[in-house]
Amino acid sequence: MKNHIYKHIELTGTSTLTIEDAVANALKRANKTVKRLCWFQVLETRGNIDKGKVHHWQVPLKIGSAIDD
Amino acid sequence: MKNHIYKHIELTGTSTLTIEDAVANALKRANKTVKRLCWFQVLETRGNIDKGKVHHWQVPLKIGSAIDD
Amino acid sequence: MKNHIYKHIELTGTSTLTIEDAVANALKRANKTVKRLCWFQVLETRGNIDKGKVHHWQVPLKIGSAIDD
Amino acid sequence: MKNHIYKHIELTGTSTLTIEDAVANALKRANKTVKRLCWFQVLETRGNIDKGKVHHWQVPLKIGSAIDD
Amino acid sequence: MKNHIYKHIELTGTSTLTIEDAVANALKRANKTVKRLCWFQVLETRGNIDKGKVHHWQVPLKIGSAIDD
Amino acid sequence: MKNHIYKHIELTGTSTLTIEDAVANALKRANKTVKRLCWFQVLETRGNIDKGKVHHWQVPLKIGSAIDD
Amino acid sequence: MKNHIYKHIELTGTSTLTIEDAVANALKRANKTVKRLCWFQVLETRGNIDKGKVHHWQVPLKIGSAIDD
Amino acid sequence: MKNHIYKHIELTGTSTLTIEDAVANALKRANKTVKRLCWFQVLETRGNIDKGKVHHWQVPLKIGSAIDD
Amino acid sequence: MKNHIYKHIELTGTSTLTIEDAVANALKRANKTVKRLCWFQVLETRGNIDKGKVHHWQVPLKIGSAIDD
Amino acid sequence: MKNHIYKHIELTGTSTLTIEDAVANALKRANKTVKRLCWFQVLETRGNIDKGKVHHWQVPLKIGSAIDD
Amino acid sequence: MKNHIYKHIELTGTSTLTIEDAVANALKRANKTVKRLCWFQVLETRGNIDKGKVHHWQVPLKIGSAIDD
Amino acid sequence: MKNHIYKHIELTGTSTLTIEDAVANALKRANKTVKRLCWFQVLETRGNIDKGKVHHWQVPLKIGSAIDD
Repeated sequence: MKNHIYKHIELTGTSTLTIEDAVANALKRANKTVKRLCWFQVLETRGNIDKGKVHHWQVPLKIGSAIDD
Repeated sequence: MKNHIYKHIELTGTSTLTIEDAVANALKRANKTVKRLCWFQVLETRGNIDKGKVHHWQVPLKIGSAIDD
Repeated sequence: MKNHIYKHIELTGTSTLTIEDAVANALKRANKTVKRLCWFQVLETRGNIDKGKVHHWQVPLKIGSAIDD
Repeated sequence: MKNHIYKHIELTGTSTLTIEDAVANALKRANKTVKRLCWFQVLETRGNIDKGKVHHWQVPLKIGSAIDD
Repeated sequence: MKNHIYKHIELTGTSTLTIEDAVANALKRANKTVKRLCWFQVLETRGNIDKGKVHHWQVPLKIGSAIDD
Repeated sequence: MKNHIYKHIELTGTSTLTIEDAVANALKRANKTVKRLCWFQVLETRGNIDKGKVHHWQVPLKIGSAIDD
Repeated sequence: MKNHIYKHIELTGTSTLTIEDAVANALKRANKTVKRLCWFQVLETRGNIDKGKVHHWQVPLKIGSAIDD
Repeated sequence: MKNHIYKHIELTGTSTLTIEDAVANALKRANKTVKRLCWFQVLETRGNIDKGKVHHWQVPLKIGSAIDD
Repeated sequence: MKNHIYKHIELTGTSTLTIEDAVANALKRANKTVKRLCWFQVLETRGNIDKGKVHHWQVPLKIGSAIDD
Repeated sequence: MKNHIYKHIELTGTSTLTIEDAVANALKRANKTVKRLCWFQVLETRGNIDKGKVHHWQVPLKIGSAIDD
Repeated sequence: MKNHIYKHIELTGTSTLTIEDAVANALKRANKTVKRLCWFQVLETRGNIDKGKVHHWQVPLKIGSAIDD
Repeated sequence: MKNHIYKHIELTGTSTLTIEDAVANALKRANKTVKRLCWFQVLETRGNIDKGKVHHWQVPLKIGSAIDD
């Protein structure tokens, strides 16, 4: 039986809209250069503030992709 | 004065839509079999990926319910 | 070169709608009394439950503001 | 040689008196429905406040009980 | 429906007697200058030692108070 | 698309042999009363000692099982 | 100006009575063999259970003592 | 015997020079508005980068000050 | 004197056999593309379950390799 | 009723073979100089690498021993 | 409005001199192969010892760099 | 092949000058009574304050030394 190996990378996605959109932006970017993305984990949820409102949501992610043995 | 006791359970809710919807799905399910749900706490936010997009948000929760002394 | 100093405060924002709205409510309140808000960090995501549904999202935040040296 | 298995549950005990009494209340309640309680671990110590005094101590516990193999 | 906001402060209470008394001392002091105290959380339990006995219990607390929106 | 819900339980498995055997013992026991076990996570690795040797490996686990929505 | 050095040891104190008494028992014991005890920090609060009641409180401590440079 | 109370605040000090200087800058600023500063604890050590070199060290601190009972 | 620099990568190794074999599989794979592997650290021990037994051990690792200055 | 006191020490055991063997080596060594060893807890699992294979497993342990009151 | 993405890498910098110098060495090395370095975070501070003195400071860092969307 | 064993001790070094000097002071002291010191890890960085300035840096360390098997 084949034993898979997964490689982890970390990215911070950002968005002016929602936490979910910041995650989507990071995954879209990872998908351009990394094959076979499998799972992600939100490491933190933070952001910067402009005029008393969220300016950008900043969401650091750990992302796992399957690599060939 | 009565001293309440709370019981904690852990569930992972999932959703293709949002983090909030994954939480709602877990609470809806807990509510079928557990009485007097009081509070929840998100333990982690993660998910799986399909074609570079979030496939399912996976949100493990700790949920507290009041139980009779 | 000027060395900035940042002061941190902690607030819990709440909302019946979304996590993002709970954050926005906390920042709106902080902005009434604190100048030059810069960044925030979500410390936890939790809430209370009514009839098996999220009643209020409760989102404790650490918020940083620049202060004069 | 027999290998024991332990099951863990989580309860929050409360008391208007002391931390120790909150723990005792949780154990007394667990003892009504769970057999062979063995150990507990305090997860957190918190409470609510009324008129500047502790109203209820709230003490979440992890409790272990031996179960038959 | 009104969305409450809570402000958090941190104090260390001390006492020569018990952990509970150290908490009570910190809350009594907070109550002099902060309105509408709601909850507290013990962050740590420590102390200093004199002649092989506890001299002062030192109990850092996070305390939450409701603030007007 | 169906959104799965997972329930988490915690058990400590023990073994005089290996960490892997302690995990296997806990899963075997869980499998008697819980359907559709999916995943586990080792929370800690510990044990008791007899005559300078490991007597029992004690391995607390979090175990997830799929439950019907 | 003299720079002090502190040595840390770890003990678990136990008591059938209270958390405070378990700490006192550990300090009393440390004081027999270690000079100039200065401070302690509670690492965890746990215990074993007999007939649904706390049998022994078990309180692991880190204890600091001043040593000569 | 008097039981002291300590209030905690959090600041981030910055410096282009060293970690120690970032701490000193934060304490100097705190000392302008807070009386009887007693202790500090470094929460994190971080910074921003310009042309491959540290631009500013950023050192978040928790600072304790004695307040009257 | 030369100051070494180490680069860290994260992989999850899997195995149907043991924790040690999952680690070995991850290192074997890393060794195909990364030179001068030096150390590793197990970040977590988990796995999936099939018919009440461990199907695959999943062991996320942080791996350090020396890189030229 | 007698209140036991436990002293904790920390050792790192190593082995070229398995995690279990590294633990056994540390306990064997502790047993030469410390009486009445009772329990251990694995703090971390790590190792060094030679030619793409585990060279030594390194397993830091906390070990508890009963001491006379 | 553009949403930035940041990639994180981890390096350990070393130095015989200071913590700051170990960080500088890691950043200098990262700057050779990674564009647009933005921030870093110290993960740990450690080192090896020779003849009772620090031989090398070892400072693992997480480093963030902006990448094109 | 020989399997080394390492013993860990914990000290807090202090200095009026720098973090590095506080570490050096602790190692110098450890070297008087412990043979074959190998590595150290900074556990925390803190200090006390006098007149708005750092009075003593206080740096708790874990120190590892090789012991004979």
